[in-house]
Amino acid sequence: MTELRRDPITKRWVVIAAGRARRPEHFKREKKQVSLTASCPFCPGNEDKTPPEIATFPERRPKNGPDWQVRVVPNKYNAVGVDEKIKVRPFGMYLAMTGYGAHEVIIESPNHYTLLEDQPLEHLMLILSAYKERLLDLYKDPNIKQIVLYKNNGSEGGASLSHPHSQLITFPIVPHEIKDDLKGAKEYFEKEKSCIWCSILEWETRTNYSVLDEDGHLVRNDPAGIRLVYKNSNFIAYCPFASRFPYEMHIIPRRHSHCFGEINIQEIRELAEILKVAIKKLNAALKEIYPESVPFNFALHTSPNLNFKGESANFKTVKKDFHWHIELYPVLAIAAGVEKGSGIYINIVAPEVAAKQLREAEIEEKPSSA
Amino acid sequence: MTELRRDPITKRWVVIAAGRARRPEHFKREKKQVSLTASCPFCPGNEDKTPPEIATFPERRPKNGPDWQVRVVPNKYNAVGVDEKIKVRPFGMYLAMTGYGAHEVIIESPNHYTLLEDQPLEHLMLILSAYKERLLDLYKDPNIKQIVLYKNNGSEGGASLSHPHSQLITFPIVPHEIKDDLKGAKEYFEKEKSCIWCSILEWETRTNYSVLDEDGHLVRNDPAGIRLVYKNSNFIAYCPFASRFPYEMHIIPRRHSHCFGEINIQEIRELAEILKVAIKKLNAALKEIYPESVPFNFALHTSPNLNFKGESANFKTVKKDFHWHIELYPVLAIAAGVEKGSGIYINIVAPEVAAKQLREAEIEEKPSSA
Repeated sequence: MTELRRDPITKRWVVIAAGRARRPEHFKREKKQVSLTASCPFCPGNEDKTPPEIATFPERRPKNGPDWQVRVVPNKYNAVGVDEKIKVRPFGMYLAMTGYGAHEVIIESPNHYTLLEDQPLEHLMLILSAYKERLLDLYKDPNIKQIVLYKNNGSEGGASLSHPHSQLITFPIVPHEIKDDLKGAKEYFEKEKSCIWCSILEWETRTNYSVLDEDGHLVRNDPAGIRLVYKNSNFIAYCPFASRFPYEMHIIPRRHSHCFGEINIQEIRELAEILKVAIKKLNAALKEIYPESVPFNFALHTSPNLNFKGESANFKTVKKDFHWHIELYPVLAIAAGVEKGSGIYINIVAPEVAAKQLREAEIEEKPSSA
Repeated sequence: MTELRRDPITKRWVVIAAGRARRPEHFKREKKQVSLTASCPFCPGNEDKTPPEIATFPERRPKNGPDWQVRVVPNKYNAVGVDEKIKVRPFGMYLAMTGYGAHEVIIESPNHYTLLEDQPLEHLMLILSAYKERLLDLYKDPNIKQIVLYKNNGSEGGASLSHPHSQLITFPIVPHEIKDDLKGAKEYFEKEKSCIWCSILEWETRTNYSVLDEDGHLVRNDPAGIRLVYKNSNFIAYCPFASRFPYEMHIIPRRHSHCFGEINIQEIRELAEILKVAIKKLNAALKEIYPESVPFNFALHTSPNLNFKGESANFKTVKKDFHWHIELYPVLAIAAGVEKGSGIYINIVAPEVAAKQLREAEIEEKPSSA
């Protein structure tokens, strides 16, 4: 039913998940989110409305009962499936592949109304631990090449159910964006003998930089930390120099590590904290426009599966040149003709302005690490 | 004010157009389109509400009066500007460039309410001629490397004014998506000694293709034309094998030509016809969900400027291996975490199903070439 297809020109893969469509009714103009807990498939007591669970955190018996804190289930409308056998099939000038992979939902809490950023620190740590455990489990499968873990927040962010949840999907190929990351990272390492994210960490926290033009006029003056939003002992959150989206933030661990599966318990605690702060600051900075919460997406960029059995020439250097991180994209503008047609994003808020607003945005409770 | 910045990892350029922001008020949740003709800056009589016009079609004197059919003006909220001098500036580990370029609006008609697809054929030809003339004029500038011509249709398609208009923007660099096209096209040509779009044309119109698995079972049977939507003597419209978006259509000229500026008058007539048919069929296929018109974007993919003065090693083979075309993306689904984070689009309508629905969609008046 599901098929991966490669564009013959750009070599970009897409998923043709025709089984997901209830077309044309599917494309209704205003997607209403299910907001009644009685009919919500993610609420406790409705466990039978999802496919049988994959895991709960903390683990407990018996399975599929209502006494869980974080629950992982297969996506009912999965874009890829583990029942498929991997087959690469050239079709004349085209190339397709069976849609082998896992597509799972991480239900973040039994509480229908608690947003990710409002979870107590300990609960958020449980969610992040669930991410880690699922990644480690899935990366045992030598047919999985890449995991993508992501969250769609709010209906404008693409969430079709309002009950707080994240998702993960795996592919037997490396997606375009991650391939670009890997390629750029490898090139940088070869030239500079450093991981590029380690260099960015250093640059964004410690480097004062100014540029004069030929006539000696100041063209740019970047004091250290101009794009920094928040930092703690294990992470920084900053607005990237070439942000595609207004208020885009990346969260990078200070310790070099290619794979999110290597995160330790202290880092999980600090990641929970910086994620809370980043999202709360975003909400605070834009509360006049979004009184409840800002719609956003985030995605984990982590290395491909080093246990992958197939062709993986590019993976040899990945441990030293790739550095896992989280990219957070607020959904404030629509990607339209110029973005889709050329790939060039027009961002109307300079990252330095966004970072300043976010740094200065006051959040009611500063989550403690206690 | 405007700056192009290159991501140090992916090498992707973005435009930081901070001058366009009226932040944070700019990000209001529901963008209301200006629908009153009295206050519409694109309506006749309001010529003083736009910057002074660049051209009108047909040409007429005096300038800036109300007696025009198609009018081209600078975008008031331009993302790039011709007043800038091109300067490439490395900032330590980053790279930036002044936002040199043109950003223009093609006002398609004096009539506020006539959609592109409802224009008489002759008027649509005038709009397409305007595209051609602006491209030829701008490509005389050796500082312009690439033009991107696009249309955002409907507020969900990203149009902030409802008066029918298209836009063009130029860059001193080749955008990511077009670079991918150029690279793929060059590789294909080197291997197959053919332009890849010429091969696609042949494949999509004439090739019957079926594949059996090892056990002799039919895996796929693609009769010729399975993804074809419409064709006339100079163009085909089809749903690409690896469509990113539901009902995505590409329009390819049958005559090999790298540059839209080479289009002749007969081709302009036929392009006007196939564009009308394609959009009308899209509206007809989805009229239950979008009773008025389907929101969409289209973008012209044409070769980089061969008059460009700077580094252009990739352009040597562009005349033979690149083939201009139009990509039309209906806006039915939201690009969310997985798309933004990985670049993999999940398309829930198979291109073969979309093409069948579009082929069979009946449109009230078949535009004649008379």
